[in-house]
Amino acid sequence: MKPGYIKYEELLSYTKTVLEKLGYPKEQAEVTAWSLVEADARGVPSHGVGRLPFYETNIKSKFVFPDAKLEVVHETPLSLVVDGHNGIGPYLAKFTMTRAIEKAKKVGAGFGALRNSSHFGMAALWAEMATAEGFIGMSFTNTRICSVVTFGKERILGTNPICFAIPSAGKTPFILDMATTTTAHGKVEVYERRNKPMPIGWVVDENGNDTSDTIEFQKLYRSTNPHGGHLFLGGAGEELGGHKGYGLGLFVDLLCAGMSMGAWSKETFSKTDGCKVASFFAAIRTDLFGNAAEIAAHVESILQGVRDSAKSQGRDRIYIHGEKEIEKHAESMVEGVPLDEVEWKMLDGYAAKFSLPSLR
Amino acid sequence: MKPGYIKYEELLSYTKTVLEKLGYPKEQAEVTAWSLVEADARGVPSHGVGRLPFYETNIKSKFVFPDAKLEVVHETPLSLVVDGHNGIGPYLAKFTMTRAIEKAKKVGAGFGALRNSSHFGMAALWAEMATAEGFIGMSFTNTRICSVVTFGKERILGTNPICFAIPSAGKTPFILDMATTTTAHGKVEVYERRNKPMPIGWVVDENGNDTSDTIEFQKLYRSTNPHGGHLFLGGAGEELGGHKGYGLGLFVDLLCAGMSMGAWSKETFSKTDGCKVASFFAAIRTDLFGNAAEIAAHVESILQGVRDSAKSQGRDRIYIHGEKEIEKHAESMVEGVPLDEVEWKMLDGYAAKFSLPSLR
Repeated sequence: MKPGYIKYEELLSYTKTVLEKLGYPKEQAEVTAWSLVEADARGVPSHGVGRLPFYETNIKSKFVFPDAKLEVVHETPLSLVVDGHNGIGPYLAKFTMTRAIEKAKKVGAGFGALRNSSHFGMAALWAEMATAEGFIGMSFTNTRICSVVTFGKERILGTNPICFAIPSAGKTPFILDMATTTTAHGKVEVYERRNKPMPIGWVVDENGNDTSDTIEFQKLYRSTNPHGGHLFLGGAGEELGGHKGYGLGLFVDLLCAGMSMGAWSKETFSKTDGCKVASFFAAIRTDLFGNAAEIAAHVESILQGVRDSAKSQGRDRIYIHGEKEIEKHAESMVEGVPLDEVEWKMLDGYAAKFSLPSLR
Repeated sequence: MKPGYIKYEELLSYTKTVLEKLGYPKEQAEVTAWSLVEADARGVPSHGVGRLPFYETNIKSKFVFPDAKLEVVHETPLSLVVDGHNGIGPYLAKFTMTRAIEKAKKVGAGFGALRNSSHFGMAALWAEMATAEGFIGMSFTNTRICSVVTFGKERILGTNPICFAIPSAGKTPFILDMATTTTAHGKVEVYERRNKPMPIGWVVDENGNDTSDTIEFQKLYRSTNPHGGHLFLGGAGEELGGHKGYGLGLFVDLLCAGMSMGAWSKETFSKTDGCKVASFFAAIRTDLFGNAAEIAAHVESILQGVRDSAKSQGRDRIYIHGEKEIEKHAESMVEGVPLDEVEWKMLDGYAAKFSLPSLR
C-alpha cells in the first residue's frame, strides 16, 4: 500500500466501528460507512470519511437522531412517502430507493419522497441502485442553505444535487451526479487555503454582486449575515443562464420538500429538533419502452458517438458522466483508497477517543 | 391595437390558414398554429410565428411530411412509444402527452417516448398539459446539432431543452423551460446584427476554445466545418460547471432518442428522409404523495418564500419560472400580440403567395 493509502475493506470496517461508537445502530452504520468509503474510493473526498466529524456534530446539535425509527406515511402501488424522523440519511435513502425499485419491478415505475432525513452522501449511490437493476434511476435532495437565486442575495437554497442515471450496455451506466450550484463550498475552501481569487460565477457578495474575493467571501459566509452565497449553474443574472441553474435548484426543492410535505432548504438545520433534509427518488423500467437490452445497446451507441467526437485543442478524451468515478473506484480496489493528512489525523483522533487500534 | 400588434385570435386563425396552405392537415395546422401564437403571446418570439418559413423549408427539404400517420409502436399501462414518421412536431407532442396523461389518470404516472418527430415548439406547452390536470409534467426533446460537449469541439448535440413543471396553489405553476445550452442561437444573431462581441461562455471556435468573436463564429457556424458551436450551461471546461450542462444535454438525448430507439441529435436533419427529432414526456400525479391540494399549497408556500427573499442590489423582484411568460400572455390577450417588422413582412409574403387578405 502506498503511503497515505488504505485498503477499502479496512477503511470500511473502521468507519463502521466509529459510527457505531457515535451511536449509529448496526444497519445505519453499515450503509453510512459504505456511502462514505465509496465516495473516497471514487475520488469524491468531499463526500467521504472526512464527513465523520460533521456527522458527529449533527448528533450533538440534535440535528440527527441515529436510532430514529422511520415511518412510511403514505403509500400507493407506485409510490411511498417516508418520514425519517431525522434519522440517518444514507440508511433512509437506501430504504426509500429499495422500496421504489420494488414498486418499479412490480408495476413499471416507483417514486419515493423522503422528509425529515439528513445528509445522504453522494446522490449517485441511490440512483445507481436502479441502474443495477437495469432501470433509470433518479435521486435528488435539498441541503443546508448556501445559495442565492437569480436577482436575490439571501442564502435560501442548498446545493440541491440532481442525479440522473441511465443504464447502458457499455462498461458503465450514464450517471450524472451534480450539485445544481456552480461549485461546492469545498472548492472555495481550497481557494482560501491557497489565498487565490475565485472565478467570477461561483458566488456573490452581501449585495448580491459577483465577487472573486475569497477571503472577504469566507468572512461573510461564516458570519451571521444571511446575505451573499453560492450561485447556481450559469452564475449571477441571466446572461450565462443563471436563471436556468436556479430553476433546477428550485425544482429539486419542490420535488423533495414539496412532494414529501417536508422542509425546504431554508428550513433545514434551523432548529435543534432535526435537520429536516428532504429527498426524492425515482426508478423507471426501460422495458416500458421496448426491449431493455436493445435500448441499453442503443444508449451505449449514443454514448460512444459522443466519446468519438472531435476533441478540443489539448484534450484527448471526452468523458461520459460517471466514467471517471468508476475508473477511480477500480484503481482504489487495487491500490487502496487515498486519504489526505487531515483525514488520517481525524481517524487517529477517533482511534484515541474510542481506544481503537490505529489504522496507520 | 398599437402599431405592430395583432389580436391573438386573428393571428391564430391566419397562421392556421398559412399552415394548411403549406400542406398541413387541419388538426396538425390547428395545434401548430396554437403552439406558435402561444409563444409570441408569451414573449418567446424565438418559438413564434417567425418559425413559419423554417417549417415551410422543412417540408421542401423532405425533413417533415405534414400528412404522415403516427404509429404507436409499443404500449404498457404506464407508457407508450410513438413513431411519428416525421410528421408535425406539435401534433405528435400533443398526442403523446395526451396519452401519457390518460395513463397517469388511470395508474398514477405516464411516460411517452416519441421518435421521428420534428420541431415541437416551446417545451412548456406539453409539460403544462400535465399541470393543467394537477400533475407534474416533464417534456424533453433533442434538436438539430449546434452544441459541443466538454473537451469536444464538434457539433454533436442540440439545444436539448428540458421542461419541468410542478402544479402549485398559486396563480401559476412552476414551469422551468430551458435549453440546456447556455443560450439559443437567436441571441447570437442579435449580437451579429448589432456587431457586438458575445460574452465568453456562449460558444467555442473551431479549435474548441472560448471565443467572443461574433462575426467569425457566424462564418464558421454557417460553413460546412463541423467544429465550433454552442456551449452547454456552465460554459467550456469544468471551472464554471460546463460538464454539468453537458450532462443535462446528454441526458435529454438518452431519454428522447435512447428510450424511443430513435435518432440522437447528431443524426437528426442529416438525410432527406425525415428530420427524425426525438422527444420524451412524463406526467406524474402528485396524489401519489398524499393530498394533492395540500401538496400544491405547500409548493406555493415554498415559491412564496423564494419570492420574499432579499433582492440583490438594483433588483426589486425575484421571478419564479413561468411567471414572466404567463404575465406577458395576459397582457397580449388585452393589448394584442407584438410582432416585429420582419415577422409582419413574412406574413405579408404569405398573404401575397396564397392570395390571403393582408393582416395589416
